Amino acid sequence: MAHGVGETLVLFLLAVYFSKGMSIRHHHESNDNESTSSSFIDGRFCLSWRLGVETNNVLLWRTVPTQCLQYVEDYLIHGQYDRDLELIMEQALSYVDAIPLVADGMDGWILDVDDTCLSNIYYYKSKKYGCDPYDPLAFRAWAMKGGCTALPPVLTLFNKLIDKGFKVFLLTGRDEGTLGQVTIDNLHNQGFTGYERLMMRTMVYKGKSAATYKSDIRKQLEDEGYRIWGNVGDQWSDLQGNSSGNRTFKIPNPMYFVP
Amino acid sequence: MAHGVGETLVLFLLAVYFSKGMSIRHHHESNDNESTSSSFIDGRFCLSWRLGVETNNVLLWRTVPTQCLQYVEDYLIHGQYDRDLELIMEQALSYVDAIPLVADGMDGWILDVDDTCLSNIYYYKSKKYGCDPYDPLAFRAWAMKGGCTALPPVLTLFNKLIDKGFKVFLLTGRDEGTLGQVTIDNLHNQGFTGYERLMMRTMVYKGKSAATYKSDIRKQLEDEGYRIWGNVGDQWSDLQGNSSGNRTFKIPNPMYFVP
Repeated sequence: MAHGVGETLVLFLLAVYFSKGMSIRHHHESNDNESTSSSFIDGRFCLSWRLGVETNNVLLWRTVPTQCLQYVEDYLIHGQYDRDLELIMEQALSYVDAIPLVADGMDGWILDVDDTCLSNIYYYKSKKYGCDPYDPLAFRAWAMKGGCTALPPVLTLFNKLIDKGFKVFLLTGRDEGTLGQVTIDNLHNQGFTGYERLMMRTMVYKGKSAATYKSDIRKQLEDEGYRIWGNVGDQWSDLQGNSSGNRTFKIPNPMYFVP
Repeated sequence: MAHGVGETLVLFLLAVYFSKGMSIRHHHESNDNESTSSSFIDGRFCLSWRLGVETNNVLLWRTVPTQCLQYVEDYLIHGQYDRDLELIMEQALSYVDAIPLVADGMDGWILDVDDTCLSNIYYYKSKKYGCDPYDPLAFRAWAMKGGCTALPPVLTLFNKLIDKGFKVFLLTGRDEGTLGQVTIDNLHNQGFTGYERLMMRTMVYKGKSAATYKSDIRKQLEDEGYRIWGNVGDQWSDLQGNSSGNRTFKIPNPMYFVP
């Protein structure tokens, strides 16, 4: 993701504005006077906030706290997010290795799409990494471009699942009518091929929460006879409710909350 | 928790040994050459590992990775753990404020005991904060002293629940036969008074997982007619399974895993 100079300048000015003059970029701990600086305090708060979000302790939040703009950018862009993803996917790969597959073709696995298979970080950069509220029209316009990039560690897991003979189901809250074809194209151009079904939100589930919609679809898969061995998503609404899977994997997402 | 000089020295030497010569204490990010140092790399790994543990992505781990001994000590002792706890309990307090209590006395709330109401950090210090494997005899000897200290933000929540008229149930895997009286005494000497029941593990649940045992007990409470509004624990086995509660709160614990 190349930063334009103008974009970087705007982000920098916004960061300064919202950080109320805090010294941005350095959120480290030390024993000197700096330990009482506002950047230190903000860094500690933002780390607590991120943990709260990832553990499903902080719910129904609409925007990232403004003082965490720089923190979230640092987290996403400068390596920790990638490390977190890799560690989680290593756990998933080890788990996959230990699953005794049955030869009946009913061993299933579920993956969410947005910010699980495909990244929207480049889009959220334009929304101050979630400090701006959700903008459905702008997000749709972004998704219509079909230019989301794969999350490499998730693609690695996906390919392993396909190779081992799992039936992989991609389950997304994206609207089938408007985003069906472009989502298929985007998944394919990023290497997500060979899955069993892409399951998108239809009129039947209009207005229902992601948790309800996804629980219903997973229940239908189990009713068809599939064993859901694993379920990967960036939202707890991907992972909780009915038929959630024998094991779930929560991918980090400090940018937005889907109920 | 006062550190003796001898203990501190031993811990320091252990830290140096297990950190493979890494420069301990500084886990910060920067753009200079330090960003490739082993302390930086270990710090990133340990932060990923802790997130993996707290999100239930890393399961069935027996010990803290040895290179994270100093990281976990720093986390627990130098403020971030306290900040994390406070933020989570603030979420719980806000949630409590919004609950419409019914005047039938059946509004319930569940709290775990060890490392939820009462802290064992002082004990785990002697076990390299979980880098040493679980030692049931030593833990029992520690618990028999009745000297665990309250986690202040959890005690604040507890008192608010009592004041508002919730029926508070303390649900612990501690063995009733051996630790019953000392646990009651320890809870009382730390200010946990006025709860409805302390529910401890009896012979019926010997050998069963915490998740199974706690699910069963919660189900029994619901069968009695209690509405479980909230459920607080430091282990996912406190929070998953049947009758888990309308909302759950995961307290951090990077020291041990209970299945």
